[in-house]
Amino acid sequence: MTATSPIISLLTDFGLKDPYVAEMKAVILSLCPNARIVDISHLIEKFNVRMGAFMLASASPYFPKGTIHVAVVDPDVGTKGRALLVKTEEAFYIGPDNGLLMLATQRQKIKHVYSITNKQYMLPKVSHTFHGRDIFAPAAAHLAKGCRPDDFGLEIKDYLVPEFAEPRLSQSELTGQVLHIDDFGNIITNISKNDLEKIGAAEGSKLRIKLGKKVIAIRFGSAYGEVKAKTALALIGSHDFLEITVNQSNASKRFKSKIGDYVTLSLF
Amino acid sequence: MTATSPIISLLTDFGLKDPYVAEMKAVILSLCPNARIVDISHLIEKFNVRMGAFMLASASPYFPKGTIHVAVVDPDVGTKGRALLVKTEEAFYIGPDNGLLMLATQRQKIKHVYSITNKQYMLPKVSHTFHGRDIFAPAAAHLAKGCRPDDFGLEIKDYLVPEFAEPRLSQSELTGQVLHIDDFGNIITNISKNDLEKIGAAEGSKLRIKLGKKVIAIRFGSAYGEVKAKTALALIGSHDFLEITVNQSNASKRFKSKIGDYVTLSLF
Amino acid sequence: MTATSPIISLLTDFGLKDPYVAEMKAVILSLCPNARIVDISHLIEKFNVRMGAFMLASASPYFPKGTIHVAVVDPDVGTKGRALLVKTEEAFYIGPDNGLLMLATQRQKIKHVYSITNKQYMLPKVSHTFHGRDIFAPAAAHLAKGCRPDDFGLEIKDYLVPEFAEPRLSQSELTGQVLHIDDFGNIITNISKNDLEKIGAAEGSKLRIKLGKKVIAIRFGSAYGEVKAKTALALIGSHDFLEITVNQSNASKRFKSKIGDYVTLSLF
Repeated sequence: MTATSPIISLLTDFGLKDPYVAEMKAVILSLCPNARIVDISHLIEKFNVRMGAFMLASASPYFPKGTIHVAVVDPDVGTKGRALLVKTEEAFYIGPDNGLLMLATQRQKIKHVYSITNKQYMLPKVSHTFHGRDIFAPAAAHLAKGCRPDDFGLEIKDYLVPEFAEPRLSQSELTGQVLHIDDFGNIITNISKNDLEKIGAAEGSKLRIKLGKKVIAIRFGSAYGEVKAKTALALIGSHDFLEITVNQSNASKRFKSKIGDYVTLSLF
Repeated sequence: MTATSPIISLLTDFGLKDPYVAEMKAVILSLCPNARIVDISHLIEKFNVRMGAFMLASASPYFPKGTIHVAVVDPDVGTKGRALLVKTEEAFYIGPDNGLLMLATQRQKIKHVYSITNKQYMLPKVSHTFHGRDIFAPAAAHLAKGCRPDDFGLEIKDYLVPEFAEPRLSQSELTGQVLHIDDFGNIITNISKNDLEKIGAAEGSKLRIKLGKKVIAIRFGSAYGEVKAKTALALIGSHDFLEITVNQSNASKRFKSKIGDYVTLSLF
Repeated sequence: MTATSPIISLLTDFGLKDPYVAEMKAVILSLCPNARIVDISHLIEKFNVRMGAFMLASASPYFPKGTIHVAVVDPDVGTKGRALLVKTEEAFYIGPDNGLLMLATQRQKIKHVYSITNKQYMLPKVSHTFHGRDIFAPAAAHLAKGCRPDDFGLEIKDYLVPEFAEPRLSQSELTGQVLHIDDFGNIITNISKNDLEKIGAAEGSKLRIKLGKKVIAIRFGSAYGEVKAKTALALIGSHDFLEITVNQSNASKRFKSKIGDYVTLSLF
């Protein structure tokens, strides 16, 4: 590693009351005293892998090259599922093999995926309930200290890629999902600017969007303020995903939309 | 800069769920890897500039000389308003030109105020929705790395000084505002010990306080416990502002007081 | 101190909205610029010393040797009670003399307890309302900088050891208390594996547990999944305390249990 302290980010659904996040940080600092730890969020809705994947994909592009991202939203902890270490062209990602890492890592181009099995890099006693502390945190610390990614276990190809990581294109229609509703009620989908270009949409286009049972016609623009108050608008948000908003109002209430809903798009 | 890592504090109304604060931290660490970042609060009530100003003025005096404070409570982001860099005798402050920085900076004596316009110190792509990440965070990082304050833009004199930054004195009467209601229900005003001395008030004085439509007579003391339970008391709190409290009870409920209310004081 | 930056952990009931935690961090960094600060939790229920003690005892074993833990849950701030500095075989603990530190420190074996009285290591002006910032934080920073523990005040032996720090054993019956109910509804007691061995309980034993007014017979196992859904189970949790759980359900609702309740155990 370079002389600069390695950066480790954390994203979990553990909440802020319990001592669990602190235990992960303590394990990291015990093994790698000069690590610098940055919280992305610990308020992912419990067990909501899709929301966690969105948050990680939103924040990770802003981190320095070489950052080690640890993400834990793991409904199946201790029963099934592998622990993954993913190396992309920009960074490292550690977390469960349930799709949580795939939105962020596919955007940065995956180079290798390893299954973490080497007990030498886990805590001596691995609980059935807390792999974040016992497996993921120590893996991040050992990686930060200079272990090679292939020290942790074998390279694999059959990791889970969830449906929400890949919008479907059929003819001139794009089908994606709602990844997140933010505090303002904006509806954030898994559809990227690249996806939109495939159906010929560009700023200024008019889109036909099917959202749940509603069908709406909506301008594809770039800033909330370019339509009148209470008017709906689609734009690429600061996270680089298509977002459906209502200027100065709450889009998720207007369209009764929730995380996981399908979104179908075509040119109007 | 000195060999010690520069300290950057963050205060926003972004909340703790979304990835926005993490994106600001990531931008800072990408540009200035040895910065140390301290959160003041991210739970400022959304768009409540007065509450943000109070929090910043409370916390900033305890930070080391030279700290760079970044504050973002910015209802008008992307539509109007300049980005400011304020140099006081003690520290630097970066944020919108809407009064947010003025309570903290006036207490520390303002030396220079610059309008941040130099695009060289912003992210390459500045969004319309997130100046915290695209303008304020990179400015803080570049300043921490040693840029001179006047590299960021021209010095200005016409920055906004909000009403709540300056209680009014007319004859023997002082008029201020409620800045914050804390978790215990204590009513914190923008009136300082200096202001009180101007009307001749000292510990032990009896004050006549008009709070909304109520007029109360109240002792100006120094510790909650010096009056009986359920008795009101005025004191200078740990933040150096006048605070109206009720011993072992909730003053804001008793007096139906809320942020922004006027408070008029005189000697009884 | 070694070349590595000293680690200081913080645990309080101050919440996340107000600037109080930031003020403690600012004081620490002003005195000891290279300290690294890790939050354990600031969402301890206000004034709930027992819950704070549990959180501290859960998290502290994962921190590196020599960590300085600062804990503040202090209903009696400014009126009575001493400030303590406890040196264990593993770490240092700073906080009020109300039992908050005793669960964590007794598990790590207490070596010395000092009463912090040396004003040289406090802020110049000590408020009646905020010892966390004015006494505890500066003590931690001075200790991190290399002051000797006995510089802070005299060694004492009569510190408060609360009832919840020591389950009672009478004949073959063990009586403890509920320390914490976690977000999943698991009931966490102050009873350790060692305590259970004293009554002859081991994994696979059947326990008779009196919880409030209910008496239940329950298996002492090791993983949630080893009983059927909706079935109660006792196990030693990741924090090393006995935990009463209901697989895939909420134990505290099922048994109407709350923090502070007595728990009486014997072999079935």
